[in-house]
Amino acid sequence: MKRRIGIIGCGAIGQDHARRLHFKLSGATVVALNDINLEATDAFSKSSGINAPVYANYQDVIQAPDVDALLIASWGPAHEEQILACIDAGKPVFCEKPLATSAAGGLRIVEAEVRHGKKLVQVGFMRRYDAGYRMLKKTLEAGTIGDPLMVHCAHRNPSVPEMYVGDMGITDTHVHEIDVLRWLLNDDYVTAQVVEGRKTRNAHAGLHDPIMVLLETRQGIRIDTEIFVACRFGYDIQCHVVGESGVASLPEPMSVPLRSAGRQSTEILMDWKLRFIDSYDVELQEWIDDTRRGVVNGPSAWDGYFASATAEACVEARHSKQITPIRIADRPAFYKKT
Amino acid sequence: MKRRIGIIGCGAIGQDHARRLHFKLSGATVVALNDINLEATDAFSKSSGINAPVYANYQDVIQAPDVDALLIASWGPAHEEQILACIDAGKPVFCEKPLATSAAGGLRIVEAEVRHGKKLVQVGFMRRYDAGYRMLKKTLEAGTIGDPLMVHCAHRNPSVPEMYVGDMGITDTHVHEIDVLRWLLNDDYVTAQVVEGRKTRNAHAGLHDPIMVLLETRQGIRIDTEIFVACRFGYDIQCHVVGESGVASLPEPMSVPLRSAGRQSTEILMDWKLRFIDSYDVELQEWIDDTRRGVVNGPSAWDGYFASATAEACVEARHSKQITPIRIADRPAFYKKT
Amino acid sequence: MKRRIGIIGCGAIGQDHARRLHFKLSGATVVALNDINLEATDAFSKSSGINAPVYANYQDVIQAPDVDALLIASWGPAHEEQILACIDAGKPVFCEKPLATSAAGGLRIVEAEVRHGKKLVQVGFMRRYDAGYRMLKKTLEAGTIGDPLMVHCAHRNPSVPEMYVGDMGITDTHVHEIDVLRWLLNDDYVTAQVVEGRKTRNAHAGLHDPIMVLLETRQGIRIDTEIFVACRFGYDIQCHVVGESGVASLPEPMSVPLRSAGRQSTEILMDWKLRFIDSYDVELQEWIDDTRRGVVNGPSAWDGYFASATAEACVEARHSKQITPIRIADRPAFYKKT
Amino acid sequence: MKRRIGIIGCGAIGQDHARRLHFKLSGATVVALNDINLEATDAFSKSSGINAPVYANYQDVIQAPDVDALLIASWGPAHEEQILACIDAGKPVFCEKPLATSAAGGLRIVEAEVRHGKKLVQVGFMRRYDAGYRMLKKTLEAGTIGDPLMVHCAHRNPSVPEMYVGDMGITDTHVHEIDVLRWLLNDDYVTAQVVEGRKTRNAHAGLHDPIMVLLETRQGIRIDTEIFVACRFGYDIQCHVVGESGVASLPEPMSVPLRSAGRQSTEILMDWKLRFIDSYDVELQEWIDDTRRGVVNGPSAWDGYFASATAEACVEARHSKQITPIRIADRPAFYKKT
Repeated sequence: MKRRIGIIGCGAIGQDHARRLHFKLSGATVVALNDINLEATDAFSKSSGINAPVYANYQDVIQAPDVDALLIASWGPAHEEQILACIDAGKPVFCEKPLATSAAGGLRIVEAEVRHGKKLVQVGFMRRYDAGYRMLKKTLEAGTIGDPLMVHCAHRNPSVPEMYVGDMGITDTHVHEIDVLRWLLNDDYVTAQVVEGRKTRNAHAGLHDPIMVLLETRQGIRIDTEIFVACRFGYDIQCHVVGESGVASLPEPMSVPLRSAGRQSTEILMDWKLRFIDSYDVELQEWIDDTRRGVVNGPSAWDGYFASATAEACVEARHSKQITPIRIADRPAFYKKT
Repeated sequence: MKRRIGIIGCGAIGQDHARRLHFKLSGATVVALNDINLEATDAFSKSSGINAPVYANYQDVIQAPDVDALLIASWGPAHEEQILACIDAGKPVFCEKPLATSAAGGLRIVEAEVRHGKKLVQVGFMRRYDAGYRMLKKTLEAGTIGDPLMVHCAHRNPSVPEMYVGDMGITDTHVHEIDVLRWLLNDDYVTAQVVEGRKTRNAHAGLHDPIMVLLETRQGIRIDTEIFVACRFGYDIQCHVVGESGVASLPEPMSVPLRSAGRQSTEILMDWKLRFIDSYDVELQEWIDDTRRGVVNGPSAWDGYFASATAEACVEARHSKQITPIRIADRPAFYKKT
Repeated sequence: MKRRIGIIGCGAIGQDHARRLHFKLSGATVVALNDINLEATDAFSKSSGINAPVYANYQDVIQAPDVDALLIASWGPAHEEQILACIDAGKPVFCEKPLATSAAGGLRIVEAEVRHGKKLVQVGFMRRYDAGYRMLKKTLEAGTIGDPLMVHCAHRNPSVPEMYVGDMGITDTHVHEIDVLRWLLNDDYVTAQVVEGRKTRNAHAGLHDPIMVLLETRQGIRIDTEIFVACRFGYDIQCHVVGESGVASLPEPMSVPLRSAGRQSTEILMDWKLRFIDSYDVELQEWIDDTRRGVVNGPSAWDGYFASATAEACVEARHSKQITPIRIADRPAFYKKT
Repeated sequence: MKRRIGIIGCGAIGQDHARRLHFKLSGATVVALNDINLEATDAFSKSSGINAPVYANYQDVIQAPDVDALLIASWGPAHEEQILACIDAGKPVFCEKPLATSAAGGLRIVEAEVRHGKKLVQVGFMRRYDAGYRMLKKTLEAGTIGDPLMVHCAHRNPSVPEMYVGDMGITDTHVHEIDVLRWLLNDDYVTAQVVEGRKTRNAHAGLHDPIMVLLETRQGIRIDTEIFVACRFGYDIQCHVVGESGVASLPEPMSVPLRSAGRQSTEILMDWKLRFIDSYDVELQEWIDDTRRGVVNGPSAWDGYFASATAEACVEARHSKQITPIRIADRPAFYKKT
């Protein structure tokens, strides 16, 4: 039997996910849609061929008896109350980043889930599903380079829109490394520091770019991540794990090697949307399969809370210029260690 | 509506394809199975969860009213008559390599299809669906390196079984390059030559290994392919297209870059089964989609015949040590140029 | 006319340099040798074919009327007084690292040279003569990647002897990056920080390894350098300069690309002595040529002092775990900016 | 004592070699110059600082009592008689390519040298002195990839002048591979074949470009070399040796890795003069050293003759389009095997 999915939030990402679940993946069918823009959502329902009813109210989607599970792709400030409603209804929910707009909000979701007594929530950290990160994790787990000691990362975008300002380098960009490295290293963070240096003349006024974020894990692993969102040259994700006997790196995306015009070269993507596009399919297929088995194996509410709390500490560290402790609530035994 | 598929030949590949169609891809359901080994097929039908009826006779599968399309994965000598039966029944058929065991057999299929008046047959040349070859084709079509002039290829296996002897380097191995390069270059072959040199001591008695095959296309493009099936070090597929203003190469499969033990390295696959595994999914998904639209866009009966005729000329060239013309029947207008 | 060179300190490095000057390079001849081990030096003079007189006293070498210039390769604690004696005698001197064993000692040499009124001293920072670093500097100066903003470095050794302890990761190892990056970026340092994380089990008891050193330049460029001297896998020098529009990296040493045993690989040197061996020739040839013209273009006494003062700040930062200002004496106008 | 060298032929290459011998290398001094253009040579002698007498007649240089050894850099047609005169005089001679303008001429030199009873002649095949080819040879000799079975090469130039026509792809370009591969593989050639395919529209009228040359060695090793002299994109020398258990390749020249404008790239040289420039120094330094010891270890008259005879067979093969035997005179025991 296919899982019957209700979609809350039908903007660009919600529509992509709806099509993915309904047409491309196996084991799911989209049976309800909700968005503040009813007209557009109705048009989408028809033009896409999904032909599911459109609800004016997200609560009605959650309550609908023919809806087995929910996917939330609404805007961030709505996530917390929508997820809490799903937990109340006892229905599995996949929510796009962020889990909530604050660590406190994330913690409220964690507490609700613990009270409910069963994991229902998965957060949309898609990098855990990327083939390259998975290969890298496998290499680490095989012991090929011994225990990890340091990690050098870079998260580079060619450019960002004018509305991208202030701490967004941390909350919108670095948050991906925060989650994926915790998963990759099977470790938690204890301190954060942010270093700002010379600013590129290509960044707009409201943004200091690039910055470097330094994280320290419970085991003492040191992570440095260059966040450079006006780097011009490409969307370039680097991750080099230094272990006791070697260095293992995130593979570059596949590209046709070219000898041309005095250069030997391969492509660096310019568009971030292409970089992890395949991982969305893997992520949602595994979520459907897990949902059918009644389990949550993907990034949990705890992972979402941990990422928010770490990002908040990084923001504080950026402003204080100090090495800043990352304060995390006690982990309920309900959640596994990492 | 899902396409209802009958599987003829349920050995290892047939079972893989059956699971792929039934569980992994979208738009198809397996409704009939046939194999000479009834007992094993019955067991597979149940254990896999497909639970389709098993037919003792392939003709009955083809004739079954609830079967919309056929997939043939029986042994090679059975392909011709099974395909001809599908054409007679007017049902679409996907047949694993080879189309037939001789060029003459392939031509008979071509002629039957022409008489039928509509394309029904697709041959399982899966490399056309590999992400790397597709990227390379896109690069060529974009004109990035100008018109192709030469192509340097290698097809290397770590080792082959004792039963792999004689001309199998051409008929079983090189046949993949024969098809994929014709598609890549949008060109046909006119002559073949085979060069045998120093034999590796790692090849068994019945096999001269490595060999080099030289093909010339209608447009004068020169292709050299090293076939080396006891190369020991890996399953290694190389393709470098030399154009008027540059060289474009087939990407290497993605692998974790490692710095370890005095070497900077990436992996070369040892197991050929992993190299093109993703392309089977793409190939069959596109076949299902095409079948639902009533068209055949994949490798046609004509492509299968052309590959067989070219391979036969290469075998002749290996024995004669001469530059050998490749004789091809007149192409029916029914088939597009390449 | 050839420059007549006196060598002070004839251990392994002194002997190498003596042979290099006398036999391999052009424009110099070794006419005097000095070492505390007279017997061994006498034997070396004969066996090498240099056949220069051996002096018991370094002052006598400096004073010898047939000695035009001095090369000092004695142990570090002797450098300061030997260099000061050369300045007193008004003779050009090339001194191996370190200039002196403290920043204060380096500053005394700077002051003596300023009093003398003419540059005489060159310090043996050979990386400035490495073909790879020179290519990288040329790329930066060409503006290919715009202004530098961050630099990511690694200095990795397979292992170090038991006597390598405490702060030697900074004073003996990182000091090479300290000098070469100042030259590469044409910039000075203003703060230092040292981060220690998880220690490899392959480092001996007296050594915390790896560490990360963070430097900030006057222009705000941020430099992170991983110092990892028991990394096991190779002598591996990395330098990646992140500019406003691209990243330029230090080339890897040339190596035969190999496809073998399931890996595609190139070599990483295991022996540090091979990594910069060619740069010694370039360094001393340029020193001879400069000496003949009466100028010093290589790393000056000021550069040597700056490196020592920076290293001392890094050592302080390692112990304090604080972001530590680098205090530098006022630069005499006598020395160019960098 | 320094070897005193006379230079015959003081065009661009002769002048470069004169400067190299006199100023850069050790153990040689240029004492005599000869060229048909007396005035220019006189000017060069003074402006370069060599200040050697200029002779109107090459015989006088050879006979001059203060000339120990000769370097010939005159035009090709003069080489044979100039080398024969050196042999008559019993003086060592280094001659730039070609040894003679025909295999027959080369053989006359071989015979003269055999009659003289002592090797005197070295030919300027500089690739044997390239660091990359030497690394590759060392890898082969270490047995890293087992016995060589096939070699895939490319010799690509961005463009050639209008006077470069007809068979010059073989006689001027491929001749470098002919010599260096014979040395690399320690083997001789037995057959040649030339394949011409689609011509690039960037080649001028008098030139078929690219071509492929196939050589077979005595041991059965198969070599294919793409000669493509209007390839536009760079001066690109490829050499991949396929052995019984791996593939070893000629290293690319060192270059700064760049991430820029959507590409990850390294440089391909556009100017052939830079590719092997370092090997000229090594070549002539070793020649000086050998000459001082009275031996010839570099490419011999026999090697020069063998290269000419092979090139002549390739030219014949290009015209006949046949697999063509390479006919070589009996090797005098005087010369070592390869």
